[in-house]
Amino acid sequence: MIVDIKQKSRLIHQRVSVTFNYEVYFTQNLFELKNPTLAQVISADGEKKPKKLVAVIDAGILKHQPELVKQLIAYTKFYGEVLAIAAEPMIISGGEAAKNDRNLVEQIQQLIEAAGLCRHSYVLAIGGGAVLDLVGYAAATAHRGIRLIRVPTTVLAQNDSGVGVKNGINAFGKKNFLGTFAPPYAVVNDSAFLTSLDDRDWRSGIAEAVKVALIKDASFFYFIHLHSAALEQRDMDTMQQVIYRCAQLHLEHIANSGDPFEMGSSRPLDFGHWAAHKLEHLTNYRLRHGEAVAIGIALDSTYSYLAGLLDCSDWQRILNTLSALGFTLYVPELGEKLSQLEDPDCLFRGLTEFREHLGGELTLMLLQRIGKGIEVHEVNLLLYRQAISLLREF
Amino acid sequence: MIVDIKQKSRLIHQRVSVTFNYEVYFTQNLFELKNPTLAQVISADGEKKPKKLVAVIDAGILKHQPELVKQLIAYTKFYGEVLAIAAEPMIISGGEAAKNDRNLVEQIQQLIEAAGLCRHSYVLAIGGGAVLDLVGYAAATAHRGIRLIRVPTTVLAQNDSGVGVKNGINAFGKKNFLGTFAPPYAVVNDSAFLTSLDDRDWRSGIAEAVKVALIKDASFFYFIHLHSAALEQRDMDTMQQVIYRCAQLHLEHIANSGDPFEMGSSRPLDFGHWAAHKLEHLTNYRLRHGEAVAIGIALDSTYSYLAGLLDCSDWQRILNTLSALGFTLYVPELGEKLSQLEDPDCLFRGLTEFREHLGGELTLMLLQRIGKGIEVHEVNLLLYRQAISLLREF
Repeated sequence: MIVDIKQKSRLIHQRVSVTFNYEVYFTQNLFELKNPTLAQVISADGEKKPKKLVAVIDAGILKHQPELVKQLIAYTKFYGEVLAIAAEPMIISGGEAAKNDRNLVEQIQQLIEAAGLCRHSYVLAIGGGAVLDLVGYAAATAHRGIRLIRVPTTVLAQNDSGVGVKNGINAFGKKNFLGTFAPPYAVVNDSAFLTSLDDRDWRSGIAEAVKVALIKDASFFYFIHLHSAALEQRDMDTMQQVIYRCAQLHLEHIANSGDPFEMGSSRPLDFGHWAAHKLEHLTNYRLRHGEAVAIGIALDSTYSYLAGLLDCSDWQRILNTLSALGFTLYVPELGEKLSQLEDPDCLFRGLTEFREHLGGELTLMLLQRIGKGIEVHEVNLLLYRQAISLLREF
Repeated sequence: MIVDIKQKSRLIHQRVSVTFNYEVYFTQNLFELKNPTLAQVISADGEKKPKKLVAVIDAGILKHQPELVKQLIAYTKFYGEVLAIAAEPMIISGGEAAKNDRNLVEQIQQLIEAAGLCRHSYVLAIGGGAVLDLVGYAAATAHRGIRLIRVPTTVLAQNDSGVGVKNGINAFGKKNFLGTFAPPYAVVNDSAFLTSLDDRDWRSGIAEAVKVALIKDASFFYFIHLHSAALEQRDMDTMQQVIYRCAQLHLEHIANSGDPFEMGSSRPLDFGHWAAHKLEHLTNYRLRHGEAVAIGIALDSTYSYLAGLLDCSDWQRILNTLSALGFTLYVPELGEKLSQLEDPDCLFRGLTEFREHLGGELTLMLLQRIGKGIEVHEVNLLLYRQAISLLREF
């Protein structure tokens, strides 16, 4: 008899540990033949070459770099011993709206299938955060996970969403309702993409840097504060430093949280995000994510001030910095239907949706001072309405 | 200046470690009010109660236990301080065919959304392996992962698929093409479900026990060999021991592989599975998974013998044991189109599909002796044809 099931332990405890390692590279002109970064990333896997790769590209980039597909193909030919493109690159429209389309995920999965990729092959996603999220979801679910190399092309994607461990699409009217936790195989931040961003996209990503600076690193906030004019005037060196530090703080938070897949009560860096997510939806994505985050930061900073957590000078400094960067801190959707708590278009419904998405009890990050966040589990809606009034007047 | 991006390190290395813990319980009559197992599992999460739960149930079970839904609801009422059912239980048809239907995944995701589940809520999946795989995929992707409690109701699910870290559905004609690695929150094996299995399903799951015994544990194989008559005659005590040991070996393999999510070259316990997967498809799922696995084991054991790896007495013992358990070791689909290597219905295409699914180079587990597997990376198709002839004659 192997085991007397009636007498011995009636349960088996299972412990599964998984470690993911990946690099975030900073480079320029990734697809120039003399830039070996991408070939090196793939070469280093220690497996039989050439490796199959399929690419999915954000259509927005091709407007500014119509030669990109040709360049990419030339690159794969030049490094043909290492990588082989296994299908025509797929071009998809970027922007948050792309994440509302489940069929796009299916098309990418089909592309992966038709190209005969395996789990040791590569999917290369080139684009803004929405495209990376969408392609990442498709890659994470095909064969239970094809290696994903992200090439984020916006400030936001390079310093925040593109370096993290999540992917997702919107479903049933809820942002990121579907997705997985799936670290990328590598991330390559190419600064050359940033030069062609329009001003809104250039600015938008800075909001995430302000966010992480406010809750984690006062000196980083003052750096942004002091360089707000340079950033607003699109100084690339300054921007590169902002991106590097923001990505670094983000990566450290994930690595050191003890719960990177947020299974327990660990929180992502989501200061200002409950209102931001709701505002994106309420404005029908007229607001870019970063623009909504800037408003969310302004709102939660103001609330922190009204709640007696944050002093007045810090509060003013935050609002002035966001303003100096060129952000608008109020949109009409912020103030509509605030009394209709049951109306799906009431801003405050964003609190419930935020809680539901993250799970467990409501947890909001607020500010104690610049550089130091504080979690709260209850909010006062009257104070929030007052905060909204203050922003309208600002 | 925060960092001189031109001079300092041009990359950030990220290391993310995630640990998953879960228990596999062995119990009887899970939904009897006096059985606290399920309530205790949920109670132990240390979070605010009652917890929301939605249940998805394999229709196949309700044929034998028409009172199950009522019982479940009574159970949740009895333990109402701990758990609250948040939607009518959803009933879905089980069996492999369910995994061909993407819409079912979407319906479960929608159920989760409509019930307002969060990441700290529970999805209870009750059914055979196919239902667990399908529900697991939906639960793993909603909110990037709702806690899944699996209640496997077949031998196969209790000793193999239901205790592991995978989920998935079939897509583009390929088995498990879509899915994720996502450990469950808990697994509860209730032996009472086994009494109502038909003979095919009772037997089918034993194939996975034979598989793991052959490559990992000779004494377990001899236990099955000696008790094949008792198993064939449905002796529950013997079956319970087989399930426990098989689940244990499976869990140990996952925990100790060093690569539980199979990102590198780690292999699952897939002896006999390349042919099994293909045969399921070729027979239009007329064969149950375990029945196909038994044929796959017979085939790869015979090949191991012909290749000079396995001695004749071990080979005969394996075939005789499978036979004594009641398995058929040959179906016509095994021998059709063997010369037409380009025909999608050629058995040998299963080798390519197997390689593609797992990634990297072809790796087949063969047998060196009973209890000891050996990996090979090349196969001789002529020997395989000979092995098929031997099985036809057996």
